[in-house]
Amino acid sequence: MFFHRKELQYEAKPERPDPVFARKLQEVLGGQYGEMTIFMQYLFQGWSLRGNEKYKDLLMDIGTEEIAHVELLATLIARLLDGSVYEQEKASSDPTINAILSGSNPQHAIVHGLGASPKDSVGVPWNAGYIIASGNLLADFRANLNAESQGRLQVARLYGMTDDQGVKDALAFLVARDTMHQNQWIASIRDLESKEGVVTPSTFPANIEPSEHSHTLYNCSEGEESSKLDWLKMPAPDGSQFKYEQGRPFGGIPKLEPASPKAHDTLPMEDIQGDNNA
Amino acid sequence: MFFHRKELQYEAKPERPDPVFARKLQEVLGGQYGEMTIFMQYLFQGWSLRGNEKYKDLLMDIGTEEIAHVELLATLIARLLDGSVYEQEKASSDPTINAILSGSNPQHAIVHGLGASPKDSVGVPWNAGYIIASGNLLADFRANLNAESQGRLQVARLYGMTDDQGVKDALAFLVARDTMHQNQWIASIRDLESKEGVVTPSTFPANIEPSEHSHTLYNCSEGEESSKLDWLKMPAPDGSQFKYEQGRPFGGIPKLEPASPKAHDTLPMEDIQGDNNA
Amino acid sequence: MFFHRKELQYEAKPERPDPVFARKLQEVLGGQYGEMTIFMQYLFQGWSLRGNEKYKDLLMDIGTEEIAHVELLATLIARLLDGSVYEQEKASSDPTINAILSGSNPQHAIVHGLGASPKDSVGVPWNAGYIIASGNLLADFRANLNAESQGRLQVARLYGMTDDQGVKDALAFLVARDTMHQNQWIASIRDLESKEGVVTPSTFPANIEPSEHSHTLYNCSEGEESSKLDWLKMPAPDGSQFKYEQGRPFGGIPKLEPASPKAHDTLPMEDIQGDNNA
Amino acid sequence: MFFHRKELQYEAKPERPDPVFARKLQEVLGGQYGEMTIFMQYLFQGWSLRGNEKYKDLLMDIGTEEIAHVELLATLIARLLDGSVYEQEKASSDPTINAILSGSNPQHAIVHGLGASPKDSVGVPWNAGYIIASGNLLADFRANLNAESQGRLQVARLYGMTDDQGVKDALAFLVARDTMHQNQWIASIRDLESKEGVVTPSTFPANIEPSEHSHTLYNCSEGEESSKLDWLKMPAPDGSQFKYEQGRPFGGIPKLEPASPKAHDTLPMEDIQGDNNA
Amino acid sequence: MFFHRKELQYEAKPERPDPVFARKLQEVLGGQYGEMTIFMQYLFQGWSLRGNEKYKDLLMDIGTEEIAHVELLATLIARLLDGSVYEQEKASSDPTINAILSGSNPQHAIVHGLGASPKDSVGVPWNAGYIIASGNLLADFRANLNAESQGRLQVARLYGMTDDQGVKDALAFLVARDTMHQNQWIASIRDLESKEGVVTPSTFPANIEPSEHSHTLYNCSEGEESSKLDWLKMPAPDGSQFKYEQGRPFGGIPKLEPASPKAHDTLPMEDIQGDNNA
Amino acid sequence: MFFHRKELQYEAKPERPDPVFARKLQEVLGGQYGEMTIFMQYLFQGWSLRGNEKYKDLLMDIGTEEIAHVELLATLIARLLDGSVYEQEKASSDPTINAILSGSNPQHAIVHGLGASPKDSVGVPWNAGYIIASGNLLADFRANLNAESQGRLQVARLYGMTDDQGVKDALAFLVARDTMHQNQWIASIRDLESKEGVVTPSTFPANIEPSEHSHTLYNCSEGEESSKLDWLKMPAPDGSQFKYEQGRPFGGIPKLEPASPKAHDTLPMEDIQGDNNA
Repeated sequence: MFFHRKELQYEAKPERPDPVFARKLQEVLGGQYGEMTIFMQYLFQGWSLRGNEKYKDLLMDIGTEEIAHVELLATLIARLLDGSVYEQEKASSDPTINAILSGSNPQHAIVHGLGASPKDSVGVPWNAGYIIASGNLLADFRANLNAESQGRLQVARLYGMTDDQGVKDALAFLVARDTMHQNQWIASIRDLESKEGVVTPSTFPANIEPSEHSHTLYNCSEGEESSKLDWLKMPAPDGSQFKYEQGRPFGGIPKLEPASPKAHDTLPMEDIQGDNNA
Repeated sequence: MFFHRKELQYEAKPERPDPVFARKLQEVLGGQYGEMTIFMQYLFQGWSLRGNEKYKDLLMDIGTEEIAHVELLATLIARLLDGSVYEQEKASSDPTINAILSGSNPQHAIVHGLGASPKDSVGVPWNAGYIIASGNLLADFRANLNAESQGRLQVARLYGMTDDQGVKDALAFLVARDTMHQNQWIASIRDLESKEGVVTPSTFPANIEPSEHSHTLYNCSEGEESSKLDWLKMPAPDGSQFKYEQGRPFGGIPKLEPASPKAHDTLPMEDIQGDNNA
Repeated sequence: MFFHRKELQYEAKPERPDPVFARKLQEVLGGQYGEMTIFMQYLFQGWSLRGNEKYKDLLMDIGTEEIAHVELLATLIARLLDGSVYEQEKASSDPTINAILSGSNPQHAIVHGLGASPKDSVGVPWNAGYIIASGNLLADFRANLNAESQGRLQVARLYGMTDDQGVKDALAFLVARDTMHQNQWIASIRDLESKEGVVTPSTFPANIEPSEHSHTLYNCSEGEESSKLDWLKMPAPDGSQFKYEQGRPFGGIPKLEPASPKAHDTLPMEDIQGDNNA
Repeated sequence: MFFHRKELQYEAKPERPDPVFARKLQEVLGGQYGEMTIFMQYLFQGWSLRGNEKYKDLLMDIGTEEIAHVELLATLIARLLDGSVYEQEKASSDPTINAILSGSNPQHAIVHGLGASPKDSVGVPWNAGYIIASGNLLADFRANLNAESQGRLQVARLYGMTDDQGVKDALAFLVARDTMHQNQWIASIRDLESKEGVVTPSTFPANIEPSEHSHTLYNCSEGEESSKLDWLKMPAPDGSQFKYEQGRPFGGIPKLEPASPKAHDTLPMEDIQGDNNA
Repeated sequence: MFFHRKELQYEAKPERPDPVFARKLQEVLGGQYGEMTIFMQYLFQGWSLRGNEKYKDLLMDIGTEEIAHVELLATLIARLLDGSVYEQEKASSDPTINAILSGSNPQHAIVHGLGASPKDSVGVPWNAGYIIASGNLLADFRANLNAESQGRLQVARLYGMTDDQGVKDALAFLVARDTMHQNQWIASIRDLESKEGVVTPSTFPANIEPSEHSHTLYNCSEGEESSKLDWLKMPAPDGSQFKYEQGRPFGGIPKLEPASPKAHDTLPMEDIQGDNNA
Repeated sequence: MFFHRKELQYEAKPERPDPVFARKLQEVLGGQYGEMTIFMQYLFQGWSLRGNEKYKDLLMDIGTEEIAHVELLATLIARLLDGSVYEQEKASSDPTINAILSGSNPQHAIVHGLGASPKDSVGVPWNAGYIIASGNLLADFRANLNAESQGRLQVARLYGMTDDQGVKDALAFLVARDTMHQNQWIASIRDLESKEGVVTPSTFPANIEPSEHSHTLYNCSEGEESSKLDWLKMPAPDGSQFKYEQGRPFGGIPKLEPASPKAHDTLPMEDIQGDNNA
């Protein structure tokens, strides 16, 4: 069960309105790796966890914190939208206003009445196809580390795209939290890898895998630059030995059976004016 | 530029048709972590890479190989759909046929004429919101490691859900390739981390981050199980020291400015019957 | 900022596993009017509100409570998935198991490892196109009343589709909460209507509207049953008088200008072999 | 069955081309609450209605009229796109043209050849996840009242964002129709509420609901501003009495059972190097 | 402007309820090539047409007729859902009921109260990404011919999947209409091709195209079966001569420039611990 | 199985960066008729083909070539993004930079680090709902001809929107390939039509169709311009005779049965306060 405190986790006070930057900030609120993705992913992982209470508690800690990051960004965006983006009349004579109007998100004005939107920087709605909760912690912590890496990268880029110190301050806080969360998932991954091994799921019996394919880099593109990667000569992370081979087929040329006449597929050509079975 | 050889990378010969399993296999063809995701993600990463030719070559090697995995699965699914799923007439008297019809994907029959579909196991079309190419290799290799982890997990689960040895054999091949690809991305990540450090992007100046927030686990959920995770007492992966604190706000209570009248938002209540500005 | 308590808002203990019903329950978790919609809609409305602190507090109260409803349903679904849905081998001989397998969601097994999914009962991912936060409270409270009406209707239908008393008990709790929330939004709507009038936005100047069209029911379909609705003879809710007229055009037949040659649209026929301007 | 007359329901003649405003108008054609939503929602409700012929006729009246609103907007947009948006060459020297090009929708030029698009103002395609037809008229009329409220709000905002009198005239007509439709759905809702009661569905037996939860506002957020809402002291719309209480859990802490080994979920930690069951 | 007549264009009377077939029929109502696609595509093409009034009238004729096909299918589906799909209690003992419940669409029961849904046979909502209106009639009539071809194919398959004579009768009517519409678009395409030539758009100046690439089939896959297609030896439809060549690159190996440091992309490896520019 | 060569199929060298045009080019990479659509559609058709090896080989030839077109466009876009789009600071004083920033895609900067995106020109992700593989070659070749027609039209429009000779050169190559592919699919369609007849699927027995509806143009819109189309007087492409009639209903007025009480639908009004069955 959840409870809300009114204070923001961190200040969200731009120096001045900037509807163009408001549009860009939507990416880290409602984009593929925005805070909506992060909090939903952690909460669903936590709710589905079967045992492993320390990690469940960690997921609930961070998932709950991340809702506050959506709140922080929604507040920041609303304030960047203060003032008016409705002043179309003056557009033809003032190029600065023109550019602002052209670069802003029309839905902030038309749909949301100057509030944040649960969408990304181009206006695509957030969807749950962005998140994962698989029940396997090592797989999911890798998803989490990726999400925090992409997220920190995007915030860092946005940091360099504004000179509003209020916005920069809030973004620096989010960068710092992502520093923590990258560290945390790396540490958690190392913990699990030390117990299970590095290849997940660890519970798939090794003897079933065809071992000639499990450590070979198949060169399917022209050139052999990839063969010069240093780690290819070192033991693989799971202790086996990497191999490097030219990509080639191990199967034959597939020939599919003709379809049932009820499919109304194209018949093999010799039969094409054949019988009708509706 | 690309070229096609007719042979499959690996055999795809089920022992018998099974339209219900064909539906399930769609998940690893066209789902969030299906082979369409994998090959698209690697190719886009490769095409956008600026420098680092060894890794570009690696991405093209694997991205190109993965198209063949879509091909393998599309062939496997088409063969599992041999025979007819159009026999509705007998449904009421034979419960086994009923169950097959109920558990199969109606689009395999109606839309695809017994061919594979670029969709997941419930019929949701694949979309590019599943993939990422950020221009930052460490971030993207973490995305790749996650994708191979989720993919291997899903194939392992499917392996346990069939007793068709032909299908199992093809799935075991895919598991082995994912073993390789997990090893490969782990090795690549270690390579980059050794050069850049573990927190990505490494190019964001450390002095900008508020350090009191960059290594603290904020406990935002009841209970302190998370404080007992062993790694919390150890140095963080980037060499700093983790801290554990009770979550609390660092910002104030946000009060937003009233909207422009042109927004037609609800006015603050005292003014609610005020002037009209259309 | 948000905090989590570990106890559920209400018990979520099915009497027995039922993966088929687990699939159906997904509708009220991640469907168009599922709890994900409800909590997101209220939080975004609250975060964007400019003034009107009582209603902001109300929105945060209920939005925060509704996250707990997602938690409750995620727990219920996970428990309905206890036991195994991986037993394909026995399928052909036991029709009851067949039906269970056919009626369950394959992603619960393949993707989520027996956890809940942020998707609806057919597997379509939740997306933010379901929610609205417009900045106009009367418009949004009507959205909220609709959401609670559709939500209660769906839970009531699900209640009649199971005889598991544990599930029924949890669903009855959700029905009761929706009873409260319908009452609450009706009361809030009446409050705003008494201050602003019933037509929203109230700030659009009445004299701009062409009054001959603002209270007329145009009969655009054969038959006049609609003219017999009792309320047509009564004053309209905003105090005007309804009229009933046969639908007819007030505009002319539109003729569009030819496109720029740069559009490469089909030219008007007489000119169709005309000049080329690329 | 449907028939088309060539005249528009209302004139759609802009004074001059304006591709930037054409993009914005797309919101009320193909957005979440655009006319495509409105007409589809009414038609599906009408087609599915079982009895209640007066309301069925009303739904068909309005649903059919609303197709003409899409037609009106499609014509308006096509005319706003007259002239050329293909003149990229002059872009660097003329800031007004630059702004027009930057603020216009590239798909109007590239995909649609200067015609309207079935998408919203940022280019997201209309989808049927926006509409509802539940079979329950009270629930659906609330959806309809919401749709007409959001729609009128968006048109009112657009009215204030242009000074083209031809466009303003057409928008004022749409505002007037939404005035009618808000009145009409309010009247219809009052009619149904007077027969069924205000809580929908009315057919769920009251004695099943846990009454301690059906009229209580749980305060789940800091502060008690919400307790001061006047209507809390008045009888609830369904005649019961509202209560105000601090939010608290009524359930316990959930502990989920371990997953079947076939799930390949992470095992509880003590067992993590345990047996393999593929 | 549109008007509605109450009679269906054709009867829609199943002999008996069949919720499993109701689910399948959704494909031709709300799927990629369902009637929603057809009517929307024709109306948008008609509304955007600039000149060519005969074809505009044709598009409005057919577009308007096709709304009636949605109506027909919605009625058929509602009647196939008569009776109850809510009888879960008896499921474990009666395999026929089990199969019906498993094969039906849960949203028909939970969301739509036994009405049709604007979605396809697996429950994916219809979206406007399925349709096209380009302003170029030859291009669009080819889209229309494709849509009628896929549509007739899907209806023909469904015809073979039921033995309900009432359903078969309605489907045969739809097949007949698609026969007409295929003939009509073929005739229209021939008309336009005779005026413009077969390659669209005809207004792109031929001298700009590199002619060595405009009639060559590049063999990019192993084997030369494609070279034996009879038409390769005949003049191409536009009068030129086909050629057959081995696929090969005409460009060089692309090397991209390093990114701006503000991108925080991975730097070329030699520089990877270089300067920070946030 | 697939292999990659490093050279591009054609050069992709813009004269200068142009992030605004980079955004527009995304349409033909990741839009509805972009190259992602083309290559996926051909590969899925090829993989599913049952017999007809010449056409299978043709599909694999072209499908494989088209991956190289995505590669070409991805390279072109990356180069158009050279230089920096991160320079927000100067925005207010330099209108040319303003327009560039406003007209560019923010995700190129924030998400992709100056690489191409698998999305269209407004940022909507590519999805598999754009493609078709039906198993019926005539239907699918019509889909292919449409795709090449729309694709060539879009590239031709883009050609007229830039004056960068390097970009124009690459686009002219793509136009030429689409010329080939239109010719090729027309020739293939004629081949199949000569064997099967023009109406697809040809295997649906003609005697089942109600012939009075299979060649009649129903005039469902005001005016008879459509009756003057020349081809109406000529034999239909399948050899029958077209007819022209006023649209009219052949079915009756549908009355649906009341729903099961378990649906909680609105009851017919006389019964509306009736019994409760949850």
